[in-house]
Amino acid sequence: MTHPTNGLNDTVHQRARLGILAVLHETPTAEFSFLRDALDLTAGNLSRHLQVLEEAALVTIDKGYEGRRARTWVRITKSGRTAFEKEIRKLKELIRRVEQPVPPPEGTGDDTG
Amino acid sequence: MTHPTNGLNDTVHQRARLGILAVLHETPTAEFSFLRDALDLTAGNLSRHLQVLEEAALVTIDKGYEGRRARTWVRITKSGRTAFEKEIRKLKELIRRVEQPVPPPEGTGDDTG
Repeated sequence: MTHPTNGLNDTVHQRARLGILAVLHETPTAEFSFLRDALDLTAGNLSRHLQVLEEAALVTIDKGYEGRRARTWVRITKSGRTAFEKEIRKLKELIRRVEQPVPPPEGTGDDTG
Repeated sequence: MTHPTNGLNDTVHQRARLGILAVLHETPTAEFSFLRDALDLTAGNLSRHLQVLEEAALVTIDKGYEGRRARTWVRITKSGRTAFEKEIRKLKELIRRVEQPVPPPEGTGDDTG
């Protein structure tokens, strides 16, 4: 009854955040600059989206050093993985629906036979 | 090389707008209240997103009457259909990648053999 897009979670669905979670789904811990380059985001933009994801407990962020270099490590949480997988299920549902349209409920179809 | 989410268009990808275009992909002309109910949006929220889609020439909006009732008809344009279909292709690419992860490029994989 409800449209598949109604089940999408805006925190996860937003393009940059979907990309961050997709990368972390493959590589559960990633360095800030790796994410920035993989997703072609500016540092400011990436920081902002990471903060939204951290506030929603979908990622954790750890700052530290590797030798003398400051590093920021981003890790997907269990909730982050669950939320991302739910998004993927909902997107698949949307795609199935687009590719196999159901007739509209109010008899507006014009197919005959 | 580039991550599939980089190819998503924010105008189309945003959750409510993706829903509007998905409904119009099935039912090319739909009445405002039909969209509102199908997508579980408030009228204000739907209006705002329709305006963004109209400004991007992805839908057209016609106001008129059906008997004495004011009606707003929304129609997907050819560009709207093309943009939506591109989004679906990109989402499928993302899903393929999630379900069949490629090894990361920098030799961080820990598979042997």
